[in-house]
Amino acid sequence: MTKTDKIRKGDVRTATRLIRNIENNIPEARSTIRTLFPFTGKARVIGLTGPPGAGKSTLIDSLIALYRDRDKKVGALLVDPTSPFTGGAILGDRIRLQRHAEDPDVFVRSLATRGALGGLSKAAGDAVHVMDAMGKDVILVETVGTGQQEVEIMNHVHTVIVVIVPGMGDSIQAIKAGILEVADVFVINKAEREGADKLYQELMAMLNMVDSFPGGWRPPVIRVGNLFDKEIFEKNIAELSNSIDAHYRNLVENDLLGDRVRRKVTAELNEALQFSILAPILEKLIAEGEFDTLVDKLLKKETDPYTCAEEVAKKYLRKQPLKGVAG
Amino acid sequence: MTKTDKIRKGDVRTATRLIRNIENNIPEARSTIRTLFPFTGKARVIGLTGPPGAGKSTLIDSLIALYRDRDKKVGALLVDPTSPFTGGAILGDRIRLQRHAEDPDVFVRSLATRGALGGLSKAAGDAVHVMDAMGKDVILVETVGTGQQEVEIMNHVHTVIVVIVPGMGDSIQAIKAGILEVADVFVINKAEREGADKLYQELMAMLNMVDSFPGGWRPPVIRVGNLFDKEIFEKNIAELSNSIDAHYRNLVENDLLGDRVRRKVTAELNEALQFSILAPILEKLIAEGEFDTLVDKLLKKETDPYTCAEEVAKKYLRKQPLKGVAG
Repeated sequence: MTKTDKIRKGDVRTATRLIRNIENNIPEARSTIRTLFPFTGKARVIGLTGPPGAGKSTLIDSLIALYRDRDKKVGALLVDPTSPFTGGAILGDRIRLQRHAEDPDVFVRSLATRGALGGLSKAAGDAVHVMDAMGKDVILVETVGTGQQEVEIMNHVHTVIVVIVPGMGDSIQAIKAGILEVADVFVINKAEREGADKLYQELMAMLNMVDSFPGGWRPPVIRVGNLFDKEIFEKNIAELSNSIDAHYRNLVENDLLGDRVRRKVTAELNEALQFSILAPILEKLIAEGEFDTLVDKLLKKETDPYTCAEEVAKKYLRKQPLKGVAG
Repeated sequence: MTKTDKIRKGDVRTATRLIRNIENNIPEARSTIRTLFPFTGKARVIGLTGPPGAGKSTLIDSLIALYRDRDKKVGALLVDPTSPFTGGAILGDRIRLQRHAEDPDVFVRSLATRGALGGLSKAAGDAVHVMDAMGKDVILVETVGTGQQEVEIMNHVHTVIVVIVPGMGDSIQAIKAGILEVADVFVINKAEREGADKLYQELMAMLNMVDSFPGGWRPPVIRVGNLFDKEIFEKNIAELSNSIDAHYRNLVENDLLGDRVRRKVTAELNEALQFSILAPILEKLIAEGEFDTLVDKLLKKETDPYTCAEEVAKKYLRKQPLKGVAG
């Protein structure tokens, strides 16, 4: 049986190894992803993002339980910048999701940054393809943070949930960043905390400033609170899942799903170009010692970065691109 | 007088316009940066990063005051992801720094994300060059967040200060991310808050796990508290500034300043390559409608992103790079 077949049958070991190879930028992984590509596009992909400490893992855990109750096969991808100190934190996320560890229809993986240019978002997109090809019905993608990289990763999902919490300093500062523009659903988590009402009001005021929303979809703001009162918590999670479903229906009914998928594919193409064009040039420059030569010249101020880059471009790029539409 | 001359004389209007052009990716800005490049490399560049709401603007404000007391010319660059909602937040930062607005030797600018690939970090590096060429003795660079992009921006500084605060949810989560690896000085801000001691202990425990630090520099952890008790606050800020100076001396005494400058220059070269190689190819693909053609094929699953990217690479890259070391 080929790797592709194994993954399509949901084989966890093969999928795990492939995702690890994607993360570590092993060229072989690329050809497997190619063969999987035609078998992707069936899963619903849902993203959660927000600042560290916003309680995203608990939400994911609850959403997994909810989709399992509906008999859906679930994949979860936890995307996280790495650090020598954070092995424990990633492990922590996994431990929190451990109650699903015995369930063969739940597949949880973590991805961490591996230096490469735009590498994390590309790796996340590819890992989603793997879970999709495995036959997962729902794939949950979690990112930590609210920066540009998180926005890029959210290009790979159909519905973006932005999770915020009261009491993280200046609330407007805490929820700013480009991520607001891609939010389809807002969650105010830990809504029993002081400041939740103020945060809710502020968010509503911000949304009121927007003239029109694509497809008429105004992102709902769901308050999830009181983790210790099971009844309230589960009611809130059900409300969240209803909003996710409503958002998806809105995409379909307004012919916006195509736009969303286009955004996903555009992001993938961009990332693949980065990978296929810039990365090999950098590798060659480094392997031939040329990169160091250029850095030395820059240190001596014999040249400037733009001049260097243009000389490299001249050396590697065709004077005239070949004719004809690619593909 | 040329633009270069004006900027070297510290002309605020010319510098402001150049930084705006850098931000908006105006090609003309590049040639001005080129002419400024030989006149850079004199300023001390200090970076502050940390999650939103950590009180970085207040620290920058205090550091500006401190360096002005020492008669240093100061530049401050506030780097911030943009959003339709956040004009106010950036404005807020500027307002907080307004007490220096009348001081001709303080130059404050904000930079926001402008879509382009790796654009924000490149823009930040260039803006630092502008302030450096203006003759600023100290340049403070603030980024909001703790993601990969902030790490990249911190490559442009000599000393990295990571600011954290107690009470932002799970404290280990709040301070994780690759940013820890680049920290030269930690600040626990709002140290009078509950949880500050625990955060301090945890951070110490993390640092104790590191076997050896480059140049023997173990990042000090400075507690800054009690904004309302002026005496304590100013004592803490003085301690912070002593640590910044001590870190710089350590770089110089251990011949590590060269490494740090090399990191800075390497980051600049990487970003310039991104800009000179990938960006023009993307522009051409988009202008000729080829990008859309590829996206359509991907949507129909007639091809996959890797195959597309390799075809584009074939079209634009020389089969054999020209001989000879670039430059």
